[in-house]
Amino acid sequence: MVEKILIKVNIVNITSNYFGDIIMKKGTLYGTHRVIDPKGSLPQPALKISNDMELYDNEILIDVDYLNIDSASFTQLKQEANGDIEKVKKKILEIVDQRGKMQNPVTGSGGMLIGKVQEIGPKLLDKIDLKVGDKIATLVSLSLTPLKIKKIKKVIPDIDRVEIDGNAILFESGIYAKLPEDMENTLTLAALDVAGAPAQVKKLVKRGDNVLILGATGKSGLMCSCMAKKMVGEEGIVIGQARNQNRAQFLINTKFCDKVIIADVQNPVHILEETIKANGGKEVNISINCLSIPNVEMSCILPVKDGGTVYFFSMATSFTKAALGAEGVGKDVTMIIGNGYTKDHAQITLDLLRESKKLREIFNEKYA
Amino acid sequence: MVEKILIKVNIVNITSNYFGDIIMKKGTLYGTHRVIDPKGSLPQPALKISNDMELYDNEILIDVDYLNIDSASFTQLKQEANGDIEKVKKKILEIVDQRGKMQNPVTGSGGMLIGKVQEIGPKLLDKIDLKVGDKIATLVSLSLTPLKIKKIKKVIPDIDRVEIDGNAILFESGIYAKLPEDMENTLTLAALDVAGAPAQVKKLVKRGDNVLILGATGKSGLMCSCMAKKMVGEEGIVIGQARNQNRAQFLINTKFCDKVIIADVQNPVHILEETIKANGGKEVNISINCLSIPNVEMSCILPVKDGGTVYFFSMATSFTKAALGAEGVGKDVTMIIGNGYTKDHAQITLDLLRESKKLREIFNEKYA
Repeated sequence: MVEKILIKVNIVNITSNYFGDIIMKKGTLYGTHRVIDPKGSLPQPALKISNDMELYDNEILIDVDYLNIDSASFTQLKQEANGDIEKVKKKILEIVDQRGKMQNPVTGSGGMLIGKVQEIGPKLLDKIDLKVGDKIATLVSLSLTPLKIKKIKKVIPDIDRVEIDGNAILFESGIYAKLPEDMENTLTLAALDVAGAPAQVKKLVKRGDNVLILGATGKSGLMCSCMAKKMVGEEGIVIGQARNQNRAQFLINTKFCDKVIIADVQNPVHILEETIKANGGKEVNISINCLSIPNVEMSCILPVKDGGTVYFFSMATSFTKAALGAEGVGKDVTMIIGNGYTKDHAQITLDLLRESKKLREIFNEKYA
Repeated sequence: MVEKILIKVNIVNITSNYFGDIIMKKGTLYGTHRVIDPKGSLPQPALKISNDMELYDNEILIDVDYLNIDSASFTQLKQEANGDIEKVKKKILEIVDQRGKMQNPVTGSGGMLIGKVQEIGPKLLDKIDLKVGDKIATLVSLSLTPLKIKKIKKVIPDIDRVEIDGNAILFESGIYAKLPEDMENTLTLAALDVAGAPAQVKKLVKRGDNVLILGATGKSGLMCSCMAKKMVGEEGIVIGQARNQNRAQFLINTKFCDKVIIADVQNPVHILEETIKANGGKEVNISINCLSIPNVEMSCILPVKDGGTVYFFSMATSFTKAALGAEGVGKDVTMIIGNGYTKDHAQITLDLLRESKKLREIFNEKYA
């Protein structure tokens, strides 16, 4: 009997694995095994991926509760349907049927989903901290997630939510967060949406640093300010930028920043002057862009001293404006493209909400 | 007499400085004192700056030999003039007259210039290694350099060169390189054009690193490969990517790379596979993008291990594609925006040409 099994394993070895009494197909790390069109593409840029719910050996099967459609995508769907929610439903089913994933063909964007773990590929069993039944949020985009919708149960347009009866697949490289029991799901989702930012700040900022946060009063700006203050300690300074007196006062009340400046981010020289004033006459060693508007590259670069770091979280950042701008003023700074993922980012972000009552209060009030 | 001078100094103290028997206006670090329209702007985005050749205390006056017009700009000028060089001359004079700088209004780009130091602002005298008469190339763009043209002497369209009789101003933050005597000016210029790349590689790459250079057979790719090999030493590996057999053979002959892979940069999974094969079964810790084409972000990101670094020198890089791409595959890598300037970059680059006979030979043959 044993011999027979061994032979079987040898035969199927190239594309399949034997686990107990099940033979499963071997999947690739990034899910390219599910790409149908064009071949050789990654799942995100692909036009069509397989949403066959037979599991590969390194995949996770999810029983989906609801989709959180990306805001740009949902707005487009509503506009196309002239606000008719039945038409939105029909369009969502059509997209998922055509593409095998909920990727808006106009905006290219996806969203995230919430669901329960239904099955775990045996190759992953020892590698991950999940068990069947765990409630998770996927932190990779729906634009690359195999999805099958049996039925759309309800659409809640105000919060871009689509409740469904259906399944999804998470690839081995896919990232996720277990939904904690000590937090409302809405609060968790609001926080996870910007999870990369505070986690990257934790990695980047050291004790004693002088840090400028541009756009400190927004969702990711508040998180970054709170984390930066924690990291720099008493010896360091966190300077938060606000665009008017009202928002500055709100920021002062949070106590996340040592100094708050009011300055126009479209005027880099003004930002430089105010930063230097707030920082005892010198440039800072780190600036962090949490703004959501374009043309602010120089406002991020100018206030940083040579040898310092500029971290761009804003998706409105222009690569060439940053590159040519720094060269134009002869600034020897390291400019980093914000990565929405870093190790343990969800945990770091949720822990920050647990630590700071004030941050949690603001998030509950404004974003949850 | 002395008293009188002291009083005078006090009076003019806010906007002027007293040096010996000259009173000069105080300039700002980034040249904002010359911005005419719009006020508050930096010189590069400004529509008009002052090209009055009366020197501020922290400026350098240059007797210009010739302008090297940015290739995109020169192409546009020639097209607009239907190839008529007299019309190109007229247009250049018109632009400089209107803007105070040679910034193409269509492309927004500038170029660089070669000239002799004519006067050095007294505030800079002890701070810089220049003396009157030194021949220099400015390494900041013409798009922010105050310029006055008395006469255009000659246009050499094949190499985008405009010989002039005129003057230019270098701001305190402006960067430049002394033209060395052991090198042809054309070779120096070709090298300085990509000076940031090898200098950044020198800073970034450490002994023992595994480095992937994408676009290793191009101008900056060759420089980066040569420098990377020098930095990683015997323990490290430099893998150069080429797009076909011909270019791969050329790269092998240079001996700059330990391994050469032939792979399509539009196919990230192929790049990943070939890189892993060349690197003994594992991902590299640094990848460097020296390509000049778009949509290659994932080919730069996928072959790098978690905790590694991706350096984007290519101006065709998309910020959002890099940011969302890394997140989509859950890659915890640091992504850096290539900065054309770093301390001593010109010196580092010219020294590399001096050290590597092969590199100098190739540059002389292909680019000088």
